[in-house]
Amino acid sequence: MRPLILITNDDGYESNGLKSLVEVASRYGEVVVVAPKHNSSGLSHSITAVRPIRCKKIEERANCVIYSCDGTPVDCVKIGVEHYCGRRPDVVLSGINHGSNASINVVYSGTMAAVMEASMLGYAAIGFSLLNHSHDADLTASMQVADKVIAKVLREGLPVGVSLNVNIPDGESVEGIRVCRQSDARWIDSYLPRGEVDGEVLYSLSGYFECSDNGPGTDQYWLERGYATVVPTTNDFTAHEWVAKWGEK
Amino acid sequence: MRPLILITNDDGYESNGLKSLVEVASRYGEVVVVAPKHNSSGLSHSITAVRPIRCKKIEERANCVIYSCDGTPVDCVKIGVEHYCGRRPDVVLSGINHGSNASINVVYSGTMAAVMEASMLGYAAIGFSLLNHSHDADLTASMQVADKVIAKVLREGLPVGVSLNVNIPDGESVEGIRVCRQSDARWIDSYLPRGEVDGEVLYSLSGYFECSDNGPGTDQYWLERGYATVVPTTNDFTAHEWVAKWGEK
Repeated sequence: MRPLILITNDDGYESNGLKSLVEVASRYGEVVVVAPKHNSSGLSHSITAVRPIRCKKIEERANCVIYSCDGTPVDCVKIGVEHYCGRRPDVVLSGINHGSNASINVVYSGTMAAVMEASMLGYAAIGFSLLNHSHDADLTASMQVADKVIAKVLREGLPVGVSLNVNIPDGESVEGIRVCRQSDARWIDSYLPRGEVDGEVLYSLSGYFECSDNGPGTDQYWLERGYATVVPTTNDFTAHEWVAKWGEK
Repeated sequence: MRPLILITNDDGYESNGLKSLVEVASRYGEVVVVAPKHNSSGLSHSITAVRPIRCKKIEERANCVIYSCDGTPVDCVKIGVEHYCGRRPDVVLSGINHGSNASINVVYSGTMAAVMEASMLGYAAIGFSLLNHSHDADLTASMQVADKVIAKVLREGLPVGVSLNVNIPDGESVEGIRVCRQSDARWIDSYLPRGEVDGEVLYSLSGYFECSDNGPGTDQYWLERGYATVVPTTNDFTAHEWVAKWGEK
């Protein structure tokens, strides 16, 4: 039986990044897409608790069926594996995201939340993100990187609880692929006051990315040098060093 | 100058948990509350990008001013430190949440996302959660634990990039406080089909918590034995062991 590959994203089922990822994945197996109906960027690991979620079959063709879901990317993964895969997926993919999920962007990312949810549920999972926000960005290099990483993971699997956060620099090709760590950074000056309405002050999202941790070994370092980066990612947020220092002796 | 303490939560500014935390924090310093207008549970690290956020002063009394914000818990922290603190807060608190954020619940938690955002921005930050979802839960033990942890952090600080995820078992008192790691678990069978409307299938959130990792050293272990737990928490999601194994030699 050919591998079964579940795909989602956070930009929505009509995004070019998703279509490119489906094209690559289809070389390796049967594809089930369960992706957000609308752009769901920045939703992180949100789940939809307050209303029912609606799903709809959009398209079915040889080796690929596509469903839209008006929930979050995490909802898409949960519903995908529970209701639309039919059998256990061999790998869960998310992306190709239009925009970086390197460094601390992983924390806000719906793309990577979907990946981490799949990993929590026991599946090998990979997120792909291109460092270009444009809907019409050139996805050639991203597709080449995705092809290599998907092939390797289907062949070798992933350790339990470890997923992959793959980022691809903008451009026609990459210098290579590097396994590295998430660099530390922050988004600052995030909300600009926009006046007052009915006694409430309005603020709109703004801000800039400040990264002081882009030395060798970090994803930012390699991305700035034209390499695609692979950060092995865990769902365990424990700062183990401090458990050892502060915990029971 | 007395310490400045910024407080938020995800249950909303009117929750009893928040009021209890304000009461404890007021013993130690000046309090600024910027908390969601509505219940924002399960929003994880979401930010509000698609519309302006509205904030409003709700109440001002000696040593405490309260603002509501119609954004997410993470938005509340960003806007709080940028626009409402006036000076650098000495500690950022979140909670007391009505419901557990132990184990992998931390991944979905708006309470803990606020804490992790504050930590990313360079502040000492602590989240408090009680293992009882009821709005009218007894918060006595939680307040005693919060008092001890806040006093210690104000005195000693926290390492850069490390925040605290504090959970309190339900009951009138705790057996003690234990520093430990986040246990592994998952929520399964999460979405139940609820019929079809206009060609779309409806699903509603359900599911149960499955934890196979509640041995000594985990938060689940100690919570089940009546202890409050403190998990030192990082914003670095890198699975470092695998960077070492797979990265450049």
